[in-house]
Amino acid sequence: MQFLSDNSAPVHPAVWDAMHAADASDTPYDGDALSADLDARFGDVFGRECAVLWVATGTAANCLALAAMVPPHGAVVCHKEAHIEMDEGGAPGFYLHGAKLLLAQGEGAKLTPETIAAVIDPIRDDVHQVQPHAISITQATEYGRVYTPAEIGEIAALAKARGLRLHMDGARFANAMVHLGVAPGEVVNGVDALSFGCVKNGAMSAEAIVFFDPSLADVARYRRKGAGHLQSKGRFLAAQLKAMLADNLWLTSARAANAAATEIAQSCAGRLLHPVEANELFVRCTAAERETLRAQGFGFYDWGAEAARFVTAWNTRSEDAGALAKAIASL
Amino acid sequence: MQFLSDNSAPVHPAVWDAMHAADASDTPYDGDALSADLDARFGDVFGRECAVLWVATGTAANCLALAAMVPPHGAVVCHKEAHIEMDEGGAPGFYLHGAKLLLAQGEGAKLTPETIAAVIDPIRDDVHQVQPHAISITQATEYGRVYTPAEIGEIAALAKARGLRLHMDGARFANAMVHLGVAPGEVVNGVDALSFGCVKNGAMSAEAIVFFDPSLADVARYRRKGAGHLQSKGRFLAAQLKAMLADNLWLTSARAANAAATEIAQSCAGRLLHPVEANELFVRCTAAERETLRAQGFGFYDWGAEAARFVTAWNTRSEDAGALAKAIASL
Amino acid sequence: MQFLSDNSAPVHPAVWDAMHAADASDTPYDGDALSADLDARFGDVFGRECAVLWVATGTAANCLALAAMVPPHGAVVCHKEAHIEMDEGGAPGFYLHGAKLLLAQGEGAKLTPETIAAVIDPIRDDVHQVQPHAISITQATEYGRVYTPAEIGEIAALAKARGLRLHMDGARFANAMVHLGVAPGEVVNGVDALSFGCVKNGAMSAEAIVFFDPSLADVARYRRKGAGHLQSKGRFLAAQLKAMLADNLWLTSARAANAAATEIAQSCAGRLLHPVEANELFVRCTAAERETLRAQGFGFYDWGAEAARFVTAWNTRSEDAGALAKAIASL
Amino acid sequence: MQFLSDNSAPVHPAVWDAMHAADASDTPYDGDALSADLDARFGDVFGRECAVLWVATGTAANCLALAAMVPPHGAVVCHKEAHIEMDEGGAPGFYLHGAKLLLAQGEGAKLTPETIAAVIDPIRDDVHQVQPHAISITQATEYGRVYTPAEIGEIAALAKARGLRLHMDGARFANAMVHLGVAPGEVVNGVDALSFGCVKNGAMSAEAIVFFDPSLADVARYRRKGAGHLQSKGRFLAAQLKAMLADNLWLTSARAANAAATEIAQSCAGRLLHPVEANELFVRCTAAERETLRAQGFGFYDWGAEAARFVTAWNTRSEDAGALAKAIASL
Repeated sequence: MQFLSDNSAPVHPAVWDAMHAADASDTPYDGDALSADLDARFGDVFGRECAVLWVATGTAANCLALAAMVPPHGAVVCHKEAHIEMDEGGAPGFYLHGAKLLLAQGEGAKLTPETIAAVIDPIRDDVHQVQPHAISITQATEYGRVYTPAEIGEIAALAKARGLRLHMDGARFANAMVHLGVAPGEVVNGVDALSFGCVKNGAMSAEAIVFFDPSLADVARYRRKGAGHLQSKGRFLAAQLKAMLADNLWLTSARAANAAATEIAQSCAGRLLHPVEANELFVRCTAAERETLRAQGFGFYDWGAEAARFVTAWNTRSEDAGALAKAIASL
Repeated sequence: MQFLSDNSAPVHPAVWDAMHAADASDTPYDGDALSADLDARFGDVFGRECAVLWVATGTAANCLALAAMVPPHGAVVCHKEAHIEMDEGGAPGFYLHGAKLLLAQGEGAKLTPETIAAVIDPIRDDVHQVQPHAISITQATEYGRVYTPAEIGEIAALAKARGLRLHMDGARFANAMVHLGVAPGEVVNGVDALSFGCVKNGAMSAEAIVFFDPSLADVARYRRKGAGHLQSKGRFLAAQLKAMLADNLWLTSARAANAAATEIAQSCAGRLLHPVEANELFVRCTAAERETLRAQGFGFYDWGAEAARFVTAWNTRSEDAGALAKAIASL
Repeated sequence: MQFLSDNSAPVHPAVWDAMHAADASDTPYDGDALSADLDARFGDVFGRECAVLWVATGTAANCLALAAMVPPHGAVVCHKEAHIEMDEGGAPGFYLHGAKLLLAQGEGAKLTPETIAAVIDPIRDDVHQVQPHAISITQATEYGRVYTPAEIGEIAALAKARGLRLHMDGARFANAMVHLGVAPGEVVNGVDALSFGCVKNGAMSAEAIVFFDPSLADVARYRRKGAGHLQSKGRFLAAQLKAMLADNLWLTSARAANAAATEIAQSCAGRLLHPVEANELFVRCTAAERETLRAQGFGFYDWGAEAARFVTAWNTRSEDAGALAKAIASL
Repeated sequence: MQFLSDNSAPVHPAVWDAMHAADASDTPYDGDALSADLDARFGDVFGRECAVLWVATGTAANCLALAAMVPPHGAVVCHKEAHIEMDEGGAPGFYLHGAKLLLAQGEGAKLTPETIAAVIDPIRDDVHQVQPHAISITQATEYGRVYTPAEIGEIAALAKARGLRLHMDGARFANAMVHLGVAPGEVVNGVDALSFGCVKNGAMSAEAIVFFDPSLADVARYRRKGAGHLQSKGRFLAAQLKAMLADNLWLTSARAANAAATEIAQSCAGRLLHPVEANELFVRCTAAERETLRAQGFGFYDWGAEAARFVTAWNTRSEDAGALAKAIASL
């Protein structure tokens, strides 16, 4: 029973089907009908014009989006535990040619206008200090916390006031949406580009960069090619993205993952380091307790010395979630 | 009847099968058994130790290989019509942080020791001029020409004598192998890294970087992550590569493509700009002639004002090749 | 008698005087009165608004100017023998983060609208090929040739028509001006940024980047700091530049250098590889002849196997020029 | 009475003299006798072999040194208030092509083995996290604190144990040396490269990068050219460096600066945020008190809301230091 991560879960059957269907085309790169249709499909989801590029990984999505926003001499404000800072092997430094990440605080890896201001206000407007050009927030955060539309609105307002772009790392955007239960468009007000995650939600190898400012997409298209991310059989990535949107598969899958997380959370409310709003649980437990759980066949990562991280996925079976819940309750 | 390119041909059924089988695993990144087995499988093919990384595109393969060999202040000697110079959207400049491509001449996009020396000999050994650190050759070349083992050996000897690394862009390595009919190991003597192409040969989205100097692979692994090319469901890329090697599918597929090209070539020997040694044909023909062919349903690219490029693939049907041959003969 | 280069000639006494006078200030970086006055002083010279930054080297001037014009995924069209291509140790690749130099032909290292078009016209407007964003011309060229205002106007018109920026490497701009004998403003019509050279003309360590589009200067200021070129005692660079402009020292010095070159040229008209329009001579002569000259105490560089390059400077003595002229005539 | 910074103090007369003398040479770049002599002169100072490059700024010195040590996918551990992090406009990101600065804690901007380990120990040895390749310490620190040879030895031992290079930013190395009163060689044990500052100590525009591992210098020479820092009249930089070393001018000048700082410190011991070990004072004082001081003609920077920074220089007059001391005492 695997709760290590959602990032290697099986591919959803509907995604497989769409990929097989895509094999009929033979138009290279992103010239195929599936790729061409993405702007419209995501436009439907978000209720506004957007320009969409597929890429194979969330790291590429985040970095290509940011590279379109931030010059090499600039900086991005993000949380000190943001994925782009912690887990992408320095990809932002590479893609942004040495632009900096400016690290801000915030409970549950959530930025606030105050924590952002605490980072950027002391920066003198001179050439000796690197100037911020964008803010990046993660929805849901690296601790499974979810920004409300109001919270995003406040950050977007700050961004606008300071002349900064706003990027959203939505590796688990679907999980956040399920938690919020509002229209997707409400969650991206003021957002310039969204990394719309699918791999953690049942896709194989496709993420979408959704540019709400299409001018950014023009730059990103060149940068995607230059980064070796323009696959010649891109139709298979487009097919995955379309399959995820079709019949709201993205929401259905995330709903299943969130539900499993919620079920587990109920067994260990007193141990939770963070409220469970998406599909991740950070559970206080000793090394001995972790060993006990592992002995019962549960797979998960240690989270520091005194906690464990459990992640559910679209395919987490209810009985497995139940078993884990019971096992934790019995510790 | 599509002769535009092999880069968007259908995925081979055996590749599909292997990908489906890979879905059973859930180990992320390249920690899965399929990925772990690649060194041994390619080691079998080449008869020597190698370290293998999967990536999604040939551009990424070429650039990651070169980035492991060449410092930012260095240069790569390549043919002036090499893919890395002409068709990768500046990816080498990005991956190598501004290192240069030094452009050499050569019939059929083939470098020779002489044309390489003509580029590097005039370079003074001082800081004012960018110093070469590697040579990159394409096998088969961008004009479908094939280096013999002896030719490669001469270039490798030059590289060694000058302290340069040798990279081989093998986007169509399989097609070259079929033409040569020798053991693969004979074709990579002195080569430090090979971009082993599969996408043009029936895979969906997987190329192999085969490092014959494993120390280069250690650097490339970090660079792959930093470039956003470490897919979390990497097992699907490993599966494709293994499927290509299994039962020599890579050679079988290339043999089919080459055979189709040869069949067409026989109809237009007098029009060929280059001998047909792999799966590409460059055929002298007027605009009117090209229109005639297109009117018959043949798809292909113009090659300048007075020629056309036809590319066959693993799935090119013999009757289609025959039809094209006949059509050209009838011009 | 040194004719190796003008780049290491002595510092003009007026420059020394200005530097000493500058020591009285102690305002750091470019906050001093001398630096602040540069925009106005160069504005007077060119008869238009400009924003001026000092830097220590021509390489830094060229690269900072280009970095403000060209994104990392773009390219600069320049002559294949341009200084930025041949002699700057790959600095453009570094400063432009991998953007390419696209190499064009042209007699005497002069670009023409035709040779520029020959490079950029074949570039498809797609992401597979690096797109030009700027043109860089050298005035006077690396072969001592001078663009007329009309020639520059044609190139500027092409640049404008194609949406490209125009940069002028004016390492020997003063020498070109002396040859042309027109108002400086006439020579920079349509130019976005000029590297205004002083080091080869009697300064010690100061070049000016003159931005005729001041918005580019805002970016360049950040880039200059990030490149380690914002000297804390920048007043000494500003002082050099002001001294060069004062009383037209820049023109007086260049006039002396050009005159010396002209004197030498008269002795060897039949041997000249290029017309002498500035302060460089490329003289056909055998190895034996070069040895003869060196035996007489003349210093110069070989230019390939069958020529020599002689460069005069602001301080070249008429008797030395005469002696060289005589020596060449006697060969 | 200026206590803003030592970075814009006048040029020492001996430096002027040496520069004038250097004008007699006309060998370009670093081919002159003065440049060639630097290795030996610094070798004398440090009692070991070293390879020395001049550059115009401390930022360039730091970044070129680090660029020779750290690959683009690596990282440098430095103090969170280090100059390279705070005040160099992102230059390390540019020069190191996106390599990261990993920020460590430490009293008075001094790193310790413990604070370094606190940063690097949690870094997993995998490709998802950026790996450290070097440590950079500042001697004296940004708060005017001085590492003892023993402290450096401990950090060097840690660096060696972890396979990291050690860089020392010695913008105020001379001030530290005066405080320590030991042989220079004792202070650089285990250091791979030292940015030996002169500009803050009476030079005009020359810093030395002293490589104790000469192999690093070979890379740095190429990088210096590529960064536009190889001045053609480099003899003037070499002359400055030699003048600083001659007759121990570097120590004499620093001794004067330190003495002035010590004199001031005695008047405000109770207000000092940091012990005064070099030539910087961080003095607790209110906005009103700062206004009082400024009204008396003292120039200095605010240091946050509740302190002021005073910096003395080689030319600070004893009467000025005394006047400031008295003024602070009278607050």
